[in-house]
Amino acid sequence: MASKVSLSKGTRDFGPEQVAQRQYIINIIRETYELHGFQPLETPAIEKLSTLMGKYGDEGDALLFKLLRSGDFLKKVDDELLQSRDFKKLLPKVTERGLRYDLTIPFARYVVMNQSEIAFPFKRYQIQPVWRADRPQKGRYQEFIQCDADIIGSDSLYNEVELIQIIDKVYKKLKLDNIVIKLNSRKILQGIAEVVKAEDKFVDLTVAIDKLDKIGVEKVLEELLSRGLTESSVGQLKEFLEFSGNNQKTLAFLNDKIASSETGKAGIEEMSFIINKLGDGMPNLSVDIMLARGLSYYTGTILEVLPLGTEMKSSINGGGRYDDLTGNFGMPGVSGVGFSFGLDRIYDVMNELDLFKEIDLNTTKLLFISFDDECQDFVFESLNKVRECGIASEMYPTPVSKSKMKKQMKYANDKKIPFVAIVGSNEMESKQFSLKNMTTGEQQLVDLEALINFCKL
Amino acid sequence: MASKVSLSKGTRDFGPEQVAQRQYIINIIRETYELHGFQPLETPAIEKLSTLMGKYGDEGDALLFKLLRSGDFLKKVDDELLQSRDFKKLLPKVTERGLRYDLTIPFARYVVMNQSEIAFPFKRYQIQPVWRADRPQKGRYQEFIQCDADIIGSDSLYNEVELIQIIDKVYKKLKLDNIVIKLNSRKILQGIAEVVKAEDKFVDLTVAIDKLDKIGVEKVLEELLSRGLTESSVGQLKEFLEFSGNNQKTLAFLNDKIASSETGKAGIEEMSFIINKLGDGMPNLSVDIMLARGLSYYTGTILEVLPLGTEMKSSINGGGRYDDLTGNFGMPGVSGVGFSFGLDRIYDVMNELDLFKEIDLNTTKLLFISFDDECQDFVFESLNKVRECGIASEMYPTPVSKSKMKKQMKYANDKKIPFVAIVGSNEMESKQFSLKNMTTGEQQLVDLEALINFCKL
Repeated sequence: MASKVSLSKGTRDFGPEQVAQRQYIINIIRETYELHGFQPLETPAIEKLSTLMGKYGDEGDALLFKLLRSGDFLKKVDDELLQSRDFKKLLPKVTERGLRYDLTIPFARYVVMNQSEIAFPFKRYQIQPVWRADRPQKGRYQEFIQCDADIIGSDSLYNEVELIQIIDKVYKKLKLDNIVIKLNSRKILQGIAEVVKAEDKFVDLTVAIDKLDKIGVEKVLEELLSRGLTESSVGQLKEFLEFSGNNQKTLAFLNDKIASSETGKAGIEEMSFIINKLGDGMPNLSVDIMLARGLSYYTGTILEVLPLGTEMKSSINGGGRYDDLTGNFGMPGVSGVGFSFGLDRIYDVMNELDLFKEIDLNTTKLLFISFDDECQDFVFESLNKVRECGIASEMYPTPVSKSKMKKQMKYANDKKIPFVAIVGSNEMESKQFSLKNMTTGEQQLVDLEALINFCKL
Repeated sequence: MASKVSLSKGTRDFGPEQVAQRQYIINIIRETYELHGFQPLETPAIEKLSTLMGKYGDEGDALLFKLLRSGDFLKKVDDELLQSRDFKKLLPKVTERGLRYDLTIPFARYVVMNQSEIAFPFKRYQIQPVWRADRPQKGRYQEFIQCDADIIGSDSLYNEVELIQIIDKVYKKLKLDNIVIKLNSRKILQGIAEVVKAEDKFVDLTVAIDKLDKIGVEKVLEELLSRGLTESSVGQLKEFLEFSGNNQKTLAFLNDKIASSETGKAGIEEMSFIINKLGDGMPNLSVDIMLARGLSYYTGTILEVLPLGTEMKSSINGGGRYDDLTGNFGMPGVSGVGFSFGLDRIYDVMNELDLFKEIDLNTTKLLFISFDDECQDFVFESLNKVRECGIASEMYPTPVSKSKMKKQMKYANDKKIPFVAIVGSNEMESKQFSLKNMTTGEQQLVDLEALINFCKL
C-alpha cells in the first residue's frame, strides 16, 4: 500500500480542520476590510511575463514561476540560439507567461486597464494565493496567500490611519495581541540621509539598516563604511541606530535632529498626524526610525507587524505609501497606500500559540445510524426533514447490518459530530430516535421535533 | 495614457461587483455541501507532473500547464537531446511540475497520502481554480473554478441520491430553475453493448453516442459503422438512439431490452433505486440512456446538468461513480462518487439570464463628506463610532475644500452607497449630520444615534 506520491516542494494540503482555521482568519480580515469600505478584486493566477518581469528586481525575476509554451516549445528558437545554451536569452522564446508573484502588480495592471470605470479613490482588497520559486523554509512557502488592501488615488494621511486601525482590529479579533506595529516614513529616512550627508547613498543606507535587528549596530556601521559612506556620515548615523524611546520621545528626537531637512520635517509632521489621530488606544504602535523595508517603490509611510514571543521572526504584515505604482504601465503620478496580511505566517503563529481551540468547525451536527435497510428508509426521510431545518446532518450510508456499529461511532468521533441518532426496528415503529450526546455520553429516546430542537441548541 | 498592458488569454479580472456575484454562487454551493456533511479540502495549485501526467489522456497531458525549471532550465539536457529538438523527450528535463488540471486527481493523491488519518466514507468538497491550456472560447477559459464534492469509500447508492439532492437544492436557491439533470449508468450502457453484441467496442460506442446531441442519430450510426461495429449491432442500436420517454417508460423499455445482461440489470435496479428515493419532487430529473460522458474512470451512475433556454450548450455540472480512482496511486478498490459545479459557466448563464439583480453587494452603507479639515476631525470620530456598530462606512479622504462636492457625490453613486452624511461647520456645532438618502433623494438633519439607526435598517 505504500505509495510514492508526494506534494511538490514548498506546497501544502489543507484538510477540513485546517481549511476551517484558515477561513476563520480570512473571514475576519475580509469583514474588517468591508467594514472600512474596501471592495473585493480578483485577478488571474496567470499573467503575461511582460506584466511581471522587471517589477521585483533581478531576484524577483528569477523567482517567478514561468509557464512553458504549449506544444513544441522550441518552435521559436533558432539553431544558433539553441546551441548557445544561453538560458536567459532562450527564456523569452520558450515562455511568455508566469504565475502571480504578489497582488500589487496585478492590482496596478487592473487599475491602468480599468481607469475610466473606477471610482477613485479606489479602495480594493484582494485575498488570493501567490507563487515564488523560493527555497522553502520555516514560514516561507512556494505557494501562499496574501490578503492585500490598498487605497489608490488619494494622498490623504487618513488612509494611513485607517490601514493601521484595520491592522489593530484584525489582530484584536484574532486574539493575537502580542504584536508590535512598527511605523516609519521613507521621508524620515531621507531626512536622516540628508542630515548625515549621505543622500547619494540612500539605497545603501536602507539596505544596511534593514539588517539592524539581525546583525546589530556595530555590523551595520561596518557595512555602511564598506558601502562607501564616509566616516563622518557613519559616525553621525550611530546615534540614530542606537536611539530608542517611546513615540513621543522619538518624534522629539527627530525634531531635534532632522527638522532642518525639508523632507525630514514633512516626514515628522505626517508621522505626528497619524499617531495623533490614532489616539491612545494603541499601545502596540511603535515608531521605529530604523525600519526601512526593502521594496523600492515606497515613498512615504512604511509599516510592518511583528509577532512577539513566538518562533516567527519575520513580519506578518507589511506595507506603505507609494507615489507611482502604475507608472510602469503608463499611468504616472497616482499616489496610494496599501499593505498585506501574510495569511500563512499568521496561521503558523496562531497554531504555535494554540489560538484555534475555540473555533467552530462548522461540521456535521447530527449523524443518523440505521440498523438495517428498512430503518434506513425511515431515517432517510427524517434526514431530509432535519436538513430542511438547516441542520448540517448525515446518514451513515450503510446500515449496521452491513457496517459495524463500532465503525460508525468511530466515524462520528473522528468527525467530531456532537449528536448521533440511532434507529432500530423499535425506534422506527414508535417513530423515535435513540439520541446520543457524544460529549456527555447521555442517551435518550426522542421524537423528530425534539431531535431537531436538540441539534439547534 | 494609452497602455499596452493586457490580460493573458483565456483569463479574466473580476471587479467588486463580479466578485460579489461569484461569491454569492460559491456560498450557496458551500452551504449546501456543508448541510450535507461535506468537509472542505484545499490542495496546492502546483503539483508534480508525475502526479498529473497520464491521468487525463494524451489530450489532457498536452493541455497541462507546465512550469519551467528555475534557473538554467537546460542544465539536465545533454547536447544530443538538445539538438534532436524532440520536445516530447525534452519535456521531462526542463519541467517537473504543473498546474492543477482538475480537483479529482489532487483529491485522489490526498486520500492516498492521508489514508490512515481519514474517517471513511470521506465526504469532501473543494472549491478552487484549475488551469487548462485550451483554446479559449465561449464558456471555456484557461483558468476557471470548479466546485467538487465526492464521497469516497462507500458504494451505497444513497450517496448518488444525496448528490442529486444537492444539485437540485443549489439550482433552486440560485433561482436557476430551467435546467435538466440527465442521469444514466455506465452499467446500462454496458448492458446495451452486450445485448447488441458490441462489448469489444464499448469505448467506440460511448465516444460515438456522446455526439448524439450535436450530430444526430444518422451521423452517429455512420460513425459507429466506421468505428468497426457490425451492421447488426448498429441496426439494433438504432432503437436505443431513437428512444425517448419519461423516466418510468425508459426503465420499462430497458427492462424489456437489456435485462438479459447481468450488468444491464444491475444498472436498471440502481437507477430505479435512485429515482425512487428522490421521489416526485424533481421534475428536472431525466434518465437519458444515451448520456455517455467522456471520462473513462466512471463505472456506475453518470450525470450531467444542462441549462435550458440559454446560449450555453455545454453542461454546467457533471459527475459519476468511479470504482478505482486511487488505484493509480497504489490504493486500489476504493469506490466513490462525485461531481463538480462549473462556477464560471453557472456565472455566465446567470449573467445571461440577468439573475444577479437582487444580490446585496455588501458595499459601504454610509459615506461621510466633510466641508473642511476641522469638520474632518469631527467626522473621523463619528466614523469610528459608526464602525463600532458594525456598519460598513467610509469618510471621503479629502474635505470638500480640497475635492469638489460633485466628485464626492459621484463617488457615492458609483459605489452604490445608499446613505451620505454631510458635515459643515453648522452641523459640527450642533453635532448633527445632513443625511441624504441616495435612493429617494430625501435629506434631513439627524444626530449620531439616528444616523446609526437609519443605516441599520
